[in-house]
Amino acid sequence: MKFQPPKGTRDLLPEDANKMQKIMDVCRNTFEKYGFQQLITPAFESFELLSAKGGLGEAVKDEIYYFKDKSERELGLRFDLTMPLARVVSSMSLPKPFKRYQIDKVWRYDQPQAKRWREFFQADIDVVGSNSMLSDVECLSAICEILDILGFKDYQIRVNSRKLLQNEFEKVVEKEKIIEVFRTIDKLDKIGFEGVETELKNKGFNPANILKVLKLNTLNNTSAGEGKRELETFFDFAKKFGIDKGLKFDISLVRGLEYYTSVVFEVNIGAKVSCGGGGRYNNLIRIVGGQELPATGISLGLDRILEVMKENKMFKEEKRNKVFVANVDNSVITDTIKITQELRKNGISAQMDLMGRSFSKQLEYANNLDIP
Amino acid sequence: MKFQPPKGTRDLLPEDANKMQKIMDVCRNTFEKYGFQQLITPAFESFELLSAKGGLGEAVKDEIYYFKDKSERELGLRFDLTMPLARVVSSMSLPKPFKRYQIDKVWRYDQPQAKRWREFFQADIDVVGSNSMLSDVECLSAICEILDILGFKDYQIRVNSRKLLQNEFEKVVEKEKIIEVFRTIDKLDKIGFEGVETELKNKGFNPANILKVLKLNTLNNTSAGEGKRELETFFDFAKKFGIDKGLKFDISLVRGLEYYTSVVFEVNIGAKVSCGGGGRYNNLIRIVGGQELPATGISLGLDRILEVMKENKMFKEEKRNKVFVANVDNSVITDTIKITQELRKNGISAQMDLMGRSFSKQLEYANNLDIP
Repeated sequence: MKFQPPKGTRDLLPEDANKMQKIMDVCRNTFEKYGFQQLITPAFESFELLSAKGGLGEAVKDEIYYFKDKSERELGLRFDLTMPLARVVSSMSLPKPFKRYQIDKVWRYDQPQAKRWREFFQADIDVVGSNSMLSDVECLSAICEILDILGFKDYQIRVNSRKLLQNEFEKVVEKEKIIEVFRTIDKLDKIGFEGVETELKNKGFNPANILKVLKLNTLNNTSAGEGKRELETFFDFAKKFGIDKGLKFDISLVRGLEYYTSVVFEVNIGAKVSCGGGGRYNNLIRIVGGQELPATGISLGLDRILEVMKENKMFKEEKRNKVFVANVDNSVITDTIKITQELRKNGISAQMDLMGRSFSKQLEYANNLDIP
Repeated sequence: MKFQPPKGTRDLLPEDANKMQKIMDVCRNTFEKYGFQQLITPAFESFELLSAKGGLGEAVKDEIYYFKDKSERELGLRFDLTMPLARVVSSMSLPKPFKRYQIDKVWRYDQPQAKRWREFFQADIDVVGSNSMLSDVECLSAICEILDILGFKDYQIRVNSRKLLQNEFEKVVEKEKIIEVFRTIDKLDKIGFEGVETELKNKGFNPANILKVLKLNTLNNTSAGEGKRELETFFDFAKKFGIDKGLKFDISLVRGLEYYTSVVFEVNIGAKVSCGGGGRYNNLIRIVGGQELPATGISLGLDRILEVMKENKMFKEEKRNKVFVANVDNSVITDTIKITQELRKNGISAQMDLMGRSFSKQLEYANNLDIP
């Protein structure tokens, strides 16, 4: 009888756990430099919150780990870190803007695929209370800095606006049906233009006009309106922040979650691998029972980043264990302990033999652990 | 409609989250100095593992968050970090000793009480593969160093041995019934000597002989045997490690979990507040399907430590946000952004206005966030 981790989950053994920790540390340090403050929330939330309009939508029960506690309370493991944030800010008064970060696990009951797990780490930053595009750009600037520090050279953050897209589509599609068009376009990366065309046809739309919109490849070519104005402001601020190089306007970007209301982002590393995204969600906090509060944020998927960094050998080799204090024989054990403890007290990672092994076996163990 | 965190759980808002983070950082740094390596495991495990003999015992289903996934797999949120470790080391071959740490949440479906939650943080270290008391002492030494760094002056780690206790009780109680005696004695801190006496009587024991054992207050007064020899070695090593001052032999210490086989520990801070414990469990890894592998470890309850440190004002005040770059008016926004970004690039936490607020309102916000 050997037990395995539950389906769709994995252990991070020390080598990978250290790498993940390094990624998390870079995120945390950067978020703090940008003035974001940490929030820690429970792993599970009431099902009522998780199923509130604006999140995963009606299918939420199929996509989360749902359970009841022993008093029949309906609960679920959180599927993101945004709903918990919305709960917190909707239920108490905090100075605005409230800039928070959270780096923690979330769970989704997807079909497990290669390099996709049902349990994964996200690093989120959000600004609540500000409607200025400065907030959106500041979030992206922090993300760019993290990607720079981690060593990514060719990342690209695609940017669009739901408002702008809505404005374009209102000219060619009935207003109430635009959400359906969004759902199809969201599959573009997976099924390509032809797939989108077929699905739109099947849904009873005339694809030609819709696809024409999706081929507007510069902001200049889009129609005037609030969405366009916001994006212009956004790109102007991005230039001032010095992060415009890594950004690209992409009118075909929709982002699945229903709560986005304005700008949306998607972070791509390497060959179109998405490692996160976000956008502005000005209605969500009201929906979960709070005031009308504008908010924006972005989420990085750390497991994806870990895998890409491993594939591309982006981690520097580092000896974590600095010293092994060999115990020649038991007559010197007192000194062995003293020296080991002295090193540790001075901040130097040190190990000693715990097995009563021979001198040569101790050296073998030190070699195995790659202690220099 | 305002949502709350699920019953028995809580949010850590920035002030508390920062404090918790500080505690976790001290644990992590210390563990790494001692050569422990990080392991990250899933939040939930198969129910089969969680209910394996040796853990919480038969009542496990009542004490955990139990649920099924959509393929009817029986799962549960982990109730400690030891069972996941036992699973990992039982299912793969790792160099021995395997010294791992894990700092993460665990969940127990207890009745919520003041300052006791159903979701809480533990910081665990364990040494797998060594039967030497050096390992036990090394674990305790790391814990003492953490408590020292955090500023605890009067902590005490109570130490006992299940073997020694077994040896004493075998003289006065039938061997098969000793586990029952253990269960009663484990309640000593809660119900006192009188309560134990009553319960033992009710269970059909003669309390006098049992209570006499519990009053053996030095190791010298106990009977010869392996348990005594191990404890003597243990205290000798503790002296060599320089941690004997904080340790105390306490023959009445049992520790609830069934998997302990030899030495057991309990960490007390302040007025007998327990903030963790552990001990040696030489059978658990075999029980979950692995080889016969000796193991020992200790777990700190970080929520308890956080609360005690807050009560006793043990956290140093610290300004996390160093600089607020006020934007006099929008004509200088480019410079405001540049200066803010420049500070951040140089590792200085900096904030700017994101709300288009007046100069005086900006200063008010900076004051609110306590930015110097």
